[in-house]
Amino acid sequence: MSEDKSGSAKLWGGRFSAATAASVEAFTASIHYDSRLYRYDIAGSKAHATMLADRGILSRQELADIIRGLSEIEAEIDAGTFRFRRELEDIHMNIEKSLVERIGPAGARLHSARSRNDQIALDLKMYLRDQCDIIGDLLAGVQTAFVVLARHYLGQVMPGYTHMQRAQPVLLSHHLLAYYEMFGRDRTRLVDCRRRMNLSPLGSAAMAGSGLPIDREQVAAALDFDGVTANSMDTVGDRDFAIEFVSCCTLIQLHLSRLSEELVLWSTEEFSFVDIADAFCTGSSIMPQKKNPDIPELIRGKSGRVVGSLISLITLVKGLPLTYNRDLQEDKEPVFDAVDTVAASLAIMAELLRNLRFKTERMAEATRHGCMTATDLADYLVVKGVPFREAHGIVGRTVAHCIEQGCELEDLTIEQLQQHSRLIEDDVFEVLRVEGSVNSRISIGGTGLRRVEEAVSLAEKQMGIA
Amino acid sequence: MSEDKSGSAKLWGGRFSAATAASVEAFTASIHYDSRLYRYDIAGSKAHATMLADRGILSRQELADIIRGLSEIEAEIDAGTFRFRRELEDIHMNIEKSLVERIGPAGARLHSARSRNDQIALDLKMYLRDQCDIIGDLLAGVQTAFVVLARHYLGQVMPGYTHMQRAQPVLLSHHLLAYYEMFGRDRTRLVDCRRRMNLSPLGSAAMAGSGLPIDREQVAAALDFDGVTANSMDTVGDRDFAIEFVSCCTLIQLHLSRLSEELVLWSTEEFSFVDIADAFCTGSSIMPQKKNPDIPELIRGKSGRVVGSLISLITLVKGLPLTYNRDLQEDKEPVFDAVDTVAASLAIMAELLRNLRFKTERMAEATRHGCMTATDLADYLVVKGVPFREAHGIVGRTVAHCIEQGCELEDLTIEQLQQHSRLIEDDVFEVLRVEGSVNSRISIGGTGLRRVEEAVSLAEKQMGIA
Amino acid sequence: MSEDKSGSAKLWGGRFSAATAASVEAFTASIHYDSRLYRYDIAGSKAHATMLADRGILSRQELADIIRGLSEIEAEIDAGTFRFRRELEDIHMNIEKSLVERIGPAGARLHSARSRNDQIALDLKMYLRDQCDIIGDLLAGVQTAFVVLARHYLGQVMPGYTHMQRAQPVLLSHHLLAYYEMFGRDRTRLVDCRRRMNLSPLGSAAMAGSGLPIDREQVAAALDFDGVTANSMDTVGDRDFAIEFVSCCTLIQLHLSRLSEELVLWSTEEFSFVDIADAFCTGSSIMPQKKNPDIPELIRGKSGRVVGSLISLITLVKGLPLTYNRDLQEDKEPVFDAVDTVAASLAIMAELLRNLRFKTERMAEATRHGCMTATDLADYLVVKGVPFREAHGIVGRTVAHCIEQGCELEDLTIEQLQQHSRLIEDDVFEVLRVEGSVNSRISIGGTGLRRVEEAVSLAEKQMGIA
Amino acid sequence: MSEDKSGSAKLWGGRFSAATAASVEAFTASIHYDSRLYRYDIAGSKAHATMLADRGILSRQELADIIRGLSEIEAEIDAGTFRFRRELEDIHMNIEKSLVERIGPAGARLHSARSRNDQIALDLKMYLRDQCDIIGDLLAGVQTAFVVLARHYLGQVMPGYTHMQRAQPVLLSHHLLAYYEMFGRDRTRLVDCRRRMNLSPLGSAAMAGSGLPIDREQVAAALDFDGVTANSMDTVGDRDFAIEFVSCCTLIQLHLSRLSEELVLWSTEEFSFVDIADAFCTGSSIMPQKKNPDIPELIRGKSGRVVGSLISLITLVKGLPLTYNRDLQEDKEPVFDAVDTVAASLAIMAELLRNLRFKTERMAEATRHGCMTATDLADYLVVKGVPFREAHGIVGRTVAHCIEQGCELEDLTIEQLQQHSRLIEDDVFEVLRVEGSVNSRISIGGTGLRRVEEAVSLAEKQMGIA
Repeated sequence: MSEDKSGSAKLWGGRFSAATAASVEAFTASIHYDSRLYRYDIAGSKAHATMLADRGILSRQELADIIRGLSEIEAEIDAGTFRFRRELEDIHMNIEKSLVERIGPAGARLHSARSRNDQIALDLKMYLRDQCDIIGDLLAGVQTAFVVLARHYLGQVMPGYTHMQRAQPVLLSHHLLAYYEMFGRDRTRLVDCRRRMNLSPLGSAAMAGSGLPIDREQVAAALDFDGVTANSMDTVGDRDFAIEFVSCCTLIQLHLSRLSEELVLWSTEEFSFVDIADAFCTGSSIMPQKKNPDIPELIRGKSGRVVGSLISLITLVKGLPLTYNRDLQEDKEPVFDAVDTVAASLAIMAELLRNLRFKTERMAEATRHGCMTATDLADYLVVKGVPFREAHGIVGRTVAHCIEQGCELEDLTIEQLQQHSRLIEDDVFEVLRVEGSVNSRISIGGTGLRRVEEAVSLAEKQMGIA
Repeated sequence: MSEDKSGSAKLWGGRFSAATAASVEAFTASIHYDSRLYRYDIAGSKAHATMLADRGILSRQELADIIRGLSEIEAEIDAGTFRFRRELEDIHMNIEKSLVERIGPAGARLHSARSRNDQIALDLKMYLRDQCDIIGDLLAGVQTAFVVLARHYLGQVMPGYTHMQRAQPVLLSHHLLAYYEMFGRDRTRLVDCRRRMNLSPLGSAAMAGSGLPIDREQVAAALDFDGVTANSMDTVGDRDFAIEFVSCCTLIQLHLSRLSEELVLWSTEEFSFVDIADAFCTGSSIMPQKKNPDIPELIRGKSGRVVGSLISLITLVKGLPLTYNRDLQEDKEPVFDAVDTVAASLAIMAELLRNLRFKTERMAEATRHGCMTATDLADYLVVKGVPFREAHGIVGRTVAHCIEQGCELEDLTIEQLQQHSRLIEDDVFEVLRVEGSVNSRISIGGTGLRRVEEAVSLAEKQMGIA
Repeated sequence: MSEDKSGSAKLWGGRFSAATAASVEAFTASIHYDSRLYRYDIAGSKAHATMLADRGILSRQELADIIRGLSEIEAEIDAGTFRFRRELEDIHMNIEKSLVERIGPAGARLHSARSRNDQIALDLKMYLRDQCDIIGDLLAGVQTAFVVLARHYLGQVMPGYTHMQRAQPVLLSHHLLAYYEMFGRDRTRLVDCRRRMNLSPLGSAAMAGSGLPIDREQVAAALDFDGVTANSMDTVGDRDFAIEFVSCCTLIQLHLSRLSEELVLWSTEEFSFVDIADAFCTGSSIMPQKKNPDIPELIRGKSGRVVGSLISLITLVKGLPLTYNRDLQEDKEPVFDAVDTVAASLAIMAELLRNLRFKTERMAEATRHGCMTATDLADYLVVKGVPFREAHGIVGRTVAHCIEQGCELEDLTIEQLQQHSRLIEDDVFEVLRVEGSVNSRISIGGTGLRRVEEAVSLAEKQMGIA
Repeated sequence: MSEDKSGSAKLWGGRFSAATAASVEAFTASIHYDSRLYRYDIAGSKAHATMLADRGILSRQELADIIRGLSEIEAEIDAGTFRFRRELEDIHMNIEKSLVERIGPAGARLHSARSRNDQIALDLKMYLRDQCDIIGDLLAGVQTAFVVLARHYLGQVMPGYTHMQRAQPVLLSHHLLAYYEMFGRDRTRLVDCRRRMNLSPLGSAAMAGSGLPIDREQVAAALDFDGVTANSMDTVGDRDFAIEFVSCCTLIQLHLSRLSEELVLWSTEEFSFVDIADAFCTGSSIMPQKKNPDIPELIRGKSGRVVGSLISLITLVKGLPLTYNRDLQEDKEPVFDAVDTVAASLAIMAELLRNLRFKTERMAEATRHGCMTATDLADYLVVKGVPFREAHGIVGRTVAHCIEQGCELEDLTIEQLQQHSRLIEDDVFEVLRVEGSVNSRISIGGTGLRRVEEAVSLAEKQMGIA
């Protein structure tokens, strides 16, 4: 160990006359978080070594030794028996040093035509590529939960809100499918992000490219990249892909925050629209009667955390000259935290949704207050030839009348209604009923039962659950 | 005018018993900024009216009147003669009220099957769709400026930096093309963003869809959308497209901030790598000798502004329940500010780049200090069979030797070099020369002249300037 | 005018060979927003001129001319008749140039021992100092509104919430006074911020101080500063005071966002705890029955805007070397926007609060559901010697019993209660009643009527309305 | 252990019918980070227990048992032998459960008149209070390092920069003391923040206060608070103190980012103003000659992280209704990360500064280029009666002349100078010399040697090192 403490034992220590201060070692080390990347680092090294051997830079024997050594290391890390050393700074150095200790000089040849600058870009891209897929799947899980709920509750009505005021009756399933859409958009963003990042940085070396006769495209193909990056200086200083990825995560967590807000709201005694399963709630240390919607509250709160990660990355990059600057090492923790937060939030939200019970009677009851079919009355008048703005005024006064009387539109007599417009006839009561109102809205994307049924069926097909 | 002050003259005032407070009018009005959207609002209304007429909701005569009235209004706004009224709140109401004043009741029929909730989503999407194109073109302008510079300076060397330390000699054109790549990625992000947003919201109405027999797809097609949104509740509360757009803007401005940092840096007396044209600099009110790189400084500073806009939007949406909440009105100013900032920054940066002169002798001179070909020496040893890590150590010690002597690697004699490794022979001096070093790096994306020449040619072709 | 277009007519143009590009002029000008600072700029110039005359750098006649000229300019700007010229860049130059045009060479002597670098710091500090006072007063206005409400509704009960679940009954006045505290803290922060910034920067000149025999302390005293800044290089690059100020604004707007959330929530049909005056609501363009709480929604949304300004400033300063860099010009718009947003939000919130009506019967009714006195039952048992954790368990089971039965704790018979604990006796019903519960909580800061009455009285005294 | 897995073994489980899902336990637990607060939690519990005993709520024996039990637990946590259990959620429950296991029912009595809502506010405030002191001391350490450097290098000149252009010669010590001021301001902010937060929340209970006869002021005094908070509902939902604290941290890290930028800049080959000790640099894995200023780069990058934490907290609180919501649990990780980042950055920066060597010859040499005494020439003319603006023009033309000739101002002959103004005489050469220039700037806060010497002496006194 003591040799590792001296600067000259560092892999880059040749030119230095003094050892690294211990506090510096602690301050600069990243191994406590970047060890998460080991699989990608090892896969990258194997592909790189194979190419070096194919190009004659390594012998076949050296390649075999390297592959074996790396496999051993990977198995040990998998098993939790590998000892990470902080003084070796990062995951690259920990693996390489261990490789040299196992197989000797061949290990020391592996780093030819490669720098940590392109290596970390490779590892992070491979990691985020996978995370795009994993989070995409988790999003699909949440979408599926919504589709199942939408199918289950098909036909149930609830108040639709704007400004948190009851606006128009809608189908609960229509409301649920709004989230299906939101999380669906999130998936498309991750797909674009993944596609854009999927070019291999390896071979950019420190920042100028390599003078050795390497084959970047072979390595890229071996690691499932769509191609190689076009400019070595851009490549080693580029963290656009990380920022774009965390931007995608931010939108996901914002969507979750909106959903959580509604779950918390609907769990209040006042709304009582939903019952979150006991297993997803906790109690109070002082108030024995409490059942708190902790999961949605925490998810809502965690939106702060993902935005924080986004801002960290943006601030990090602001004003940096090209190419690699050590500041960029600070990219990983925000990225990892965003991944962990979004993944955990999506996973538990899907579980919670699968255990959610809507109180449909309460919801239906709520649609019967607040003159929610006022718009329908206006539309009724429009069809009778009243200009919309005039119809709007008539209905406004009719509603004011109801508020005064403490009644609903459908409680008015035909005579009372006709005081506001002569054009109103007996058929008006059809449109003043909640079900009539809901089912009339059959424009594409509207809440009419027919439309929502189509939407559920389409979503089931998209999620492969039809 | 006095009638406009009473609540009942508001287009939604039917149900209200008291007039809007004047301070409330001032606080809630958006006309001072959303008037920017008038073209889109009018185009949307024309398409909507045409569809209403096709579906028999408006008569042909009413349609003709509406089209004529809207055209008049547009012409007046274009000419600056239209009088916007704050008490009418927003662009939609200003236009509609004026239309009614011009053509009577037909104007009041236009708002059938439509709400300001889907109308503003339409206007903003149409606006941002255009901005994706406009900013995409401005990005292309900056890219073109880089390609022209890269062609002009082809063959000139400069120090490549990592950690702001001289690292390896590179071609100036290679450095310039790094920015070509960065701004090129930005363009692809805008393309994705545009594609994702390009679904028409109109017909979602307040949030539940419409009960009138409208044809959303006709309107969408007339307005060049790729289709219609799938869920009315999602649609009216969705601002994902604005957040994604400003995320794209943020990355652009971050790239500009990095470029600006380098321009400021290179303009220092100490670097003296670049001469920014006088027309793009300003002086000091106290120090007569100063020539300050104000433009890049301001652009760098404006990165704060775009990030601020992004955070505004994110904070805005956090925790909002579905569907439309008035909070969303606050989306427009950050979006407009991001558009203005990014567009102005790109435009002036392109102009500045077209007037930039690099001091190539200074750059070349700088490559001759700092043992910049050390990596080449290491690669030389690797080719001779020395494991890379060992080679790195040998070269590290050789460099330490140079620093002690105050000389460069190429100043050492062959004997001095051989003290560090017996494998070094006379041919080493070829790789220790800057030109040799640069041109050896012919891996794809590397700085070797051949590669950079290819890259310039490809870029010229992509920008249509070959 | 044409002379102003040539670089050499710029006040700093001596060394320049080419004129400033028109696009550059547009890009760098700040006069469209910094004209807001004219009063401070002029007051600063008068104090500076007086000092220069006292030190013999200006003659008495020159001083008199300068004072007169500046007063004229101020009167014209007040009256809206002053013509600002963009080509003169900023407020300093616009005023100075106009002064020279009015009084000749004496005007040109004013800028001795001064730079725009210290001048803008002066203007901005003086402006923000005033804003600390103005916003402090607006905060007091909101606090006063809360005290008045708290006095008016003293004795009314409502459910207190944690996790948005009914937790314990509290006095409405107690809830209202929570906001009194929050906005009170905000005021103390502004006081600290003002005190810290209240050191005059003038005399720091460009960044090195002045060689002329100036008296910085005289100027500072004349402008009501507590002293002068200690280091000229720090001074011209310092924007801490602006960031601290906007941090204070952010907390204010966050408090407003929490209050707004509650107002929106309480305005829902489901809560119906509050009636916002019609004058502070608006309607819907499509749904005639709607009455939307737009003001609190907008205020809540505007929190994004203030946070955005904070982030703009932070991003701006990140990584800037000392001393003045042009980036800093971008400080003003976020500061102004934060001022405007917070001031307008506070003003209208105070007005809204003065027009607010609580539906106290609904609130009282709500306290009678949800087993809200469960904690009191636990405390009752604690007093009888049951360890709290055990009492908590007993009450938890009793509540579960109520939920099963669909009843409240006070609906249980003494026998039913005793099934859960033998220690429960007839006196328990006192503590199970809402009023008993509320009034028992007489720890300092608690919701007991006696405590709240004290708190209201104290607050009235603090606000000078007792 | 298995009993802990069932909901009914949770301390709040009485009312629940189903156990907490394992994934929920993982998602909601905070013990992995809030264990950091154990000292404060235990100190708070001891003070609370003592008060409860004084008020007769606990017996003396129970108090003695509790104190002993808590001391044991603290000793075990100190020693690393305490087993934290995730299923017990947080630090409060882990300690309390362990206490009950040790001392039986008395442990269960401790939570009387207390809730986790006021307990966590207490713990966090006590922790942050200490951190204000600790970070204050670290700031003083950095300030001291600057004073030592300023004393050491007193009299050395360097170019002062604005816009990163050489502006006027200054003393290196003057530049260093600018940072002394910045970090000094940071300390005053922490003092204000600490004072404002130093009111005890304990006794606010869940949010309504307590009905038990507690003495909040006794507990507050025992824990060194200045008093108690005034409103229980405000208290449990208040995180202002955390946000204000992290705002202070943000400004500190921004200052560090500016300092780091300069260290990185000055370490470039081009500037070569400073030599960072080898122990604070690292090398390159590919380029053997590199010596990278990693520490300042990382510190600069870490500004992103602190800003991210600030935004996390702000976003968290936005739009939350009163009082405690579970979202608030997300406050701790950003706070802890900000503390760790700022503390580590300050500590290592102080160490780095103590090992810093300025290359004073290079700095002095740099002052001799760039016409840096141009302002002095203008001041010279002002003293001779030329209006400043005219003087500025004259010097501007003189500088243009120098640039054409490739010479400095002091290289011009008296005749050449007089071509620009007849008023220039032989004594001008005194002011054109760097030393003359520097030492003339003796306005308060200026860079004149006399002033800087005073400033160093004052700073030494303030830091107690005189």
